[in-house]
Amino acid sequence: VSDSVHAAGTTGPRRPGRPATGFPIRRREIVEVAMRLFAEHGYQNTTVAQICEAADLTKGVLYHYVKSKEELLAAVFDSYTIPTLEAFEALMSGEPPFADQLREASRLMVRTITTNLDAVRIVERELPLLRSDDPQWSDSRQRMRRIDQMVRTLISDGIEAGEFAPMDPALGAMAFWGMHNNISRWYGPKWEGRLDDISDTFMRVLTHGFGVEG
Amino acid sequence: VSDSVHAAGTTGPRRPGRPATGFPIRRREIVEVAMRLFAEHGYQNTTVAQICEAADLTKGVLYHYVKSKEELLAAVFDSYTIPTLEAFEALMSGEPPFADQLREASRLMVRTITTNLDAVRIVERELPLLRSDDPQWSDSRQRMRRIDQMVRTLISDGIEAGEFAPMDPALGAMAFWGMHNNISRWYGPKWEGRLDDISDTFMRVLTHGFGVEG
Repeated sequence: VSDSVHAAGTTGPRRPGRPATGFPIRRREIVEVAMRLFAEHGYQNTTVAQICEAADLTKGVLYHYVKSKEELLAAVFDSYTIPTLEAFEALMSGEPPFADQLREASRLMVRTITTNLDAVRIVERELPLLRSDDPQWSDSRQRMRRIDQMVRTLISDGIEAGEFAPMDPALGAMAFWGMHNNISRWYGPKWEGRLDDISDTFMRVLTHGFGVEG
Repeated sequence: VSDSVHAAGTTGPRRPGRPATGFPIRRREIVEVAMRLFAEHGYQNTTVAQICEAADLTKGVLYHYVKSKEELLAAVFDSYTIPTLEAFEALMSGEPPFADQLREASRLMVRTITTNLDAVRIVERELPLLRSDDPQWSDSRQRMRRIDQMVRTLISDGIEAGEFAPMDPALGAMAFWGMHNNISRWYGPKWEGRLDDISDTFMRVLTHGFGVEG
């Protein structure tokens, strides 16, 4: 079993008579089923048996694709943190003015959160677990730290350049993250088609606050 | 048993030979023990047996003070929503300028959240439960709606008065709540003594954004 798992893995050699993409595609489907259940019932309250039933496969087959429920949670975290970090890295290699970069970061987060709602809800709810020292999600933990650090650096660079008001960059970053991460709490069907409205309002608040001046 | 519960309740007549304050004080102690356990392990993962053990009392005695674990959760919600609504009502009866009211609302929330951390963390984590139709916490649910409505009204009044930039007041309120509710996620011992710093930074962001102008 162990051999066949490796042989069918994304980086392993192709197994004769089996499509090379079968394993990762089926695995991604299982992760998506688990994500939906975790988002609906909570990670702790979801059993492997429920995942098997929803994915219509036996435990034996499930364990062919993933080692444990923890590995499924790690995959859910990855599905959010990998593309988000990549997008932030592309964004942050840009040039001043820093207010434009901040606006772009805001637009990016509105889009990323609303298109990864289940994953974000799970990240938000399982934040104490994600922050714990468990090595199973240390990659996602480090990616989240790097994203946070990029926002702090953007704010402190903007302050240093005289573009942003003097403040503790950590607190500025908390204000940024609070506004955006909270979207996963209230976003629903009635906001679909209004992504630009959300972005524009948040960008306006971030750069000028509520006041009409400035 | 039912009689003695009523006789010892906060509004019932005093029972001879027993201090009138005994019941509510002991009940509050039990709520505080439950709150600590809910905050640490999550509401779903905490059993009545664990609450009894931590409070050093038998189930029989516990059920003399509270009917159920749900009643304890309702009491935790109340402990946060009752004083917060009262403080907001006092605040909102103030006069323009609306920016001053918004700043006061921000200062109030920083203070309220950091002094009710456990309750806020439980509210945040159990928001889907609090928002559900369960009549056990309909009072807290209505209080939270009224508080949110007050912030929306403040923003729309400020817009109407030409003091705030035109925006969807609901989105403005989401930005406000996101920044503040998120405090419960990152606030810890190292921030103690820096409440004014948090308040000042958030008020600055709310009224002027990150920019130096305005």
